Amino acid sequence: MTLTTNRQVTLASRPTGIAQADNFRIIEAPIPNLEDGQILIQNKFLSVEPAMRGWIADTSNYSPPVAIGAVMRSLASGHVIASRNADYKEGDAVTGWFGWQEVAAVGADQIIRRIEETDLPLSLSLGALGLNGVTAYLGLTRLGRPKAGETVLVSTAAGSVGSAVGQIANLLGCRTVGITGGPIKAALCTDEFGYAAALDYRQDGLDLDAALAAACPDGVDIYFDNTAGAISDAAHRHLALHARVVLCGTASIPGWDVWPTGARVERHLLVKRATMAGFLIFDHMDGYGDAVQRLADWVRAGNLQYREDVLDGLEACPDAIAGLYRGENLGKRLIRLEP
Amino acid sequence: MTLTTNRQVTLASRPTGIAQADNFRIIEAPIPNLEDGQILIQNKFLSVEPAMRGWIADTSNYSPPVAIGAVMRSLASGHVIASRNADYKEGDAVTGWFGWQEVAAVGADQIIRRIEETDLPLSLSLGALGLNGVTAYLGLTRLGRPKAGETVLVSTAAGSVGSAVGQIANLLGCRTVGITGGPIKAALCTDEFGYAAALDYRQDGLDLDAALAAACPDGVDIYFDNTAGAISDAAHRHLALHARVVLCGTASIPGWDVWPTGARVERHLLVKRATMAGFLIFDHMDGYGDAVQRLADWVRAGNLQYREDVLDGLEACPDAIAGLYRGENLGKRLIRLEP
Repeated sequence: MTLTTNRQVTLASRPTGIAQADNFRIIEAPIPNLEDGQILIQNKFLSVEPAMRGWIADTSNYSPPVAIGAVMRSLASGHVIASRNADYKEGDAVTGWFGWQEVAAVGADQIIRRIEETDLPLSLSLGALGLNGVTAYLGLTRLGRPKAGETVLVSTAAGSVGSAVGQIANLLGCRTVGITGGPIKAALCTDEFGYAAALDYRQDGLDLDAALAAACPDGVDIYFDNTAGAISDAAHRHLALHARVVLCGTASIPGWDVWPTGARVERHLLVKRATMAGFLIFDHMDGYGDAVQRLADWVRAGNLQYREDVLDGLEACPDAIAGLYRGENLGKRLIRLEP
Repeated sequence: MTLTTNRQVTLASRPTGIAQADNFRIIEAPIPNLEDGQILIQNKFLSVEPAMRGWIADTSNYSPPVAIGAVMRSLASGHVIASRNADYKEGDAVTGWFGWQEVAAVGADQIIRRIEETDLPLSLSLGALGLNGVTAYLGLTRLGRPKAGETVLVSTAAGSVGSAVGQIANLLGCRTVGITGGPIKAALCTDEFGYAAALDYRQDGLDLDAALAAACPDGVDIYFDNTAGAISDAAHRHLALHARVVLCGTASIPGWDVWPTGARVERHLLVKRATMAGFLIFDHMDGYGDAVQRLADWVRAGNLQYREDVLDGLEACPDAIAGLYRGENLGKRLIRLEP
């Protein structure tokens, strides 16, 4: 190991809306000394997620917000470069909660898993074989409970979760319809991710209700919802009897400080005897390993396509979340560190 | 049998909002002749339900709307007075879809069940041991999945479904909080139906959020929702982790022709990993018999209190639905026919 200092991205100030570049600071810290039981990891890929908005917001959420001055919370993948833990040895590829930094000294509880699929690119452990892919697989199968022949509607259909949901649903025998923004993503949906139809909600003059009725003539059995908002209001109007709505994200909602309103959903759920449920991967970690194995097999067989949007260097971190919300990425956004 | 004609309440015109007295007409028809397989029933009690609004509305719903000129669809209970069906004999007490009329010639498929608990009042087969009680029991147990020690919040807590939900939840070891309108119903909730607390949403100056926080300090594990609307918007803000919302009715919504808006629910369900599901008893008829037995045992033991609001004579039918929505009943509304 040639590193002498550990560069880190810390939270400098708490954003009121979407985190911008100036909410972060890049600092240099010493390489940490390992305590007994700890593992030293050199990060190779850092993850950038829409959910990071929530991790740094000062409002009720899944977990305590990242403290001002702390290293930004992040999933990352890299290799063990030193270990005082018998379960991990130098050279092991691992993925877990290592933060936006070059080097992390972590306890075993911060490691999600050792990466066994070393025949596949390491970056996949943060995307198609990481939180995104596993969220897609477990959210769809555990809450959506797809049956062959059903219609599965996906919002942010070309995104890293959505594109996996669509493909997995296809692999399980469902018919898939995607909602996405812009003609490039719509084309990606049908050409690369196997959607039977893709609706571009930004298209001038689009009547989303009419488009949904045409694309889903038998109604929507599973709506995998990554957006909420007006897209979901329309989707709810097309639910089939006994439909399942899997709530996975609220990307279309700019903020919750002033709570947004929308079309009431109760009557749809009542008349259709439908179910709407929130999914968070951290409740389902027991299924992580099996999900990765199944997803890896599909990747190896060429049945699961994925896109990555790789930015180079730690300097790309501060603006990376804001960029997601500007919609500039096409695929899972990652930061690659050298060497 | 002494009847020579059969008086019936028919739908004269389709209401735009809540059905009023002049939407119905009382006519005299001949006593029907039985076809092979049919059963002739003399109705003793007719049911009046909030859901009747939906049965006659000309919009998407569970079943085709009652036709203009047809006998009003209704549950009823009475006795077999003639039978050309080997499964039913004169004198049997039965409950089913017999309509707002004195006498009904029905097929076996219109009979929900033979009433075996003849030690209890016949009227109970339309309330605590009928659709209301069974809806309460199966909605709570199948969709709510209560665990002892959990907090169960009920809207229209003193109503015929709500009061049963509260008491059943208590019997299953839960702590119950009711939301109801007016001091009389609030007192009924705590004094007769065993709620630990009752919130009167009509009370001047009530801060429903503060009241819910005080009454449900550990959050709401099950929200049994009969109202939707502003009451539910408040309830959703107090859901506990992994909460279940059972949607059973939308009593607070005056109409759906202009679709109402409300606070978005997606983020609550996502952050709390909660589930919201519509319940309709007709999906759960397999559990009806067992539910009636369990409920009847609780009634016999004095553990399940109920209120009835009995109107006398077929003449009371036309205005009876409107009266429900004026909130004039305290308990399950029934029409009693003589003799």
